[in-house]
Amino acid sequence: MTYCVAMHLADGLVFISDSRTNAGIDQISTFAKLFVFSVPGERLLVLQTAGNLATSQSVVNLLRQRCQGDGPHLLNVTTLYDATVLVAATLREVVARDRSKLTAGIDLSCSFIVGGQVAGEPMGIYNVYAQGNFFQATPDTPFLQLGESKYGRPILDRNLAYHTPLDQALRCGLISFDSTIRSNLSVGMPLDLLVYRKDSLEAPARQRINQDDAYYQQIRRQWSDGLKKLLAELPPPPYG
Amino acid sequence: MTYCVAMHLADGLVFISDSRTNAGIDQISTFAKLFVFSVPGERLLVLQTAGNLATSQSVVNLLRQRCQGDGPHLLNVTTLYDATVLVAATLREVVARDRSKLTAGIDLSCSFIVGGQVAGEPMGIYNVYAQGNFFQATPDTPFLQLGESKYGRPILDRNLAYHTPLDQALRCGLISFDSTIRSNLSVGMPLDLLVYRKDSLEAPARQRINQDDAYYQQIRRQWSDGLKKLLAELPPPPYG
Repeated sequence: MTYCVAMHLADGLVFISDSRTNAGIDQISTFAKLFVFSVPGERLLVLQTAGNLATSQSVVNLLRQRCQGDGPHLLNVTTLYDATVLVAATLREVVARDRSKLTAGIDLSCSFIVGGQVAGEPMGIYNVYAQGNFFQATPDTPFLQLGESKYGRPILDRNLAYHTPLDQALRCGLISFDSTIRSNLSVGMPLDLLVYRKDSLEAPARQRINQDDAYYQQIRRQWSDGLKKLLAELPPPPYG
Repeated sequence: MTYCVAMHLADGLVFISDSRTNAGIDQISTFAKLFVFSVPGERLLVLQTAGNLATSQSVVNLLRQRCQGDGPHLLNVTTLYDATVLVAATLREVVARDRSKLTAGIDLSCSFIVGGQVAGEPMGIYNVYAQGNFFQATPDTPFLQLGESKYGRPILDRNLAYHTPLDQALRCGLISFDSTIRSNLSVGMPLDLLVYRKDSLEAPARQRINQDDAYYQQIRRQWSDGLKKLLAELPPPPYG
């Protein structure tokens, strides 16, 4: 399984992905699920993936290779919408190519988040379904999730809004990951994260957070202790 | 969908169930999913259900009717284990009875939590799978969930242990329900709850918590405000 979150906020975009890949519970590996395509000063595109590793890797590889070619590719399309159309088309292409009698009964599907900004265009984040159709997040619901989304959803539902500042949104996202990782073995560290500031058109350094990252450890502990205190401070129930 | 939680703690048992039943999203009703079988001073048994409403109602009705008969029933078996065997057998019986060409393609399955105490025996809670096999919660993992369990699981994983006092466990459970109800339309108020004190062998009054219950509203608000504050107090991230 996988857990990815993308946020489209007034001040910018936040992307966080876990990196655990598993085939069964005894074949667990680390693979990045966050990919950057950028032309400094002109565009930043981020892809996040969930689902079949062979499919998602092939899609990303083909998208990358084609950036050298003459056709439309992620570094020359003029809108984020067109970039998303390309990702979706490549996804359908790979699934059609790899589907055969040999893969009967194997789930080849994967899904994507495509986000970023192209010069002269607004920022955005799109969710590409395994079927290749897609939708965009809007200020009403300013985040998208892929994969094992339920454990970490309440904290986002409760605390994330379009005007939430980027650093607070990032903290909220990291807590959402902590809740998911504690409850589900198939989502695991390290985390990859990227925070994009609106209209900067620069690819910020992608950060990798390992299990022993001091900041992550601190907010995990502080959150956990704070929740315990908060729970203890609730008035005693009049029932029972 | 449904959400039910049962807890087996050092001091007693806690049961909480929602009451929303839906067939699609436009056919939503309120049905209790928590049932009590008791002989004051001798036994208290609690059943919680999730799954097909026709199946679960039939199981509970048959179990109730048979309490008048001569065979083994929920009011005369001598252990909680045997009570659970009866529930499981009745579940298989109803599914076998109702399965026909008419119900082909319809999911008739449901699952149960069976908990309580019979005089001279320890307390316990069992999870009965839709297939009729079952397992018991132990002090290592002192709670069971049915239905839409993921949204409300992190708060239980973080804060519930075998020696958690009953009133604190109840607060933790109610917050788990609040998180689930906020994130998932198919789980809804009112909630039914029952707190059983170890060795009391009495059926406490079952409580029903409605949307406008003053205590529930207060802890919802206090929890929500507390989380916001907690999040704001986390140190700013060194990334991004």
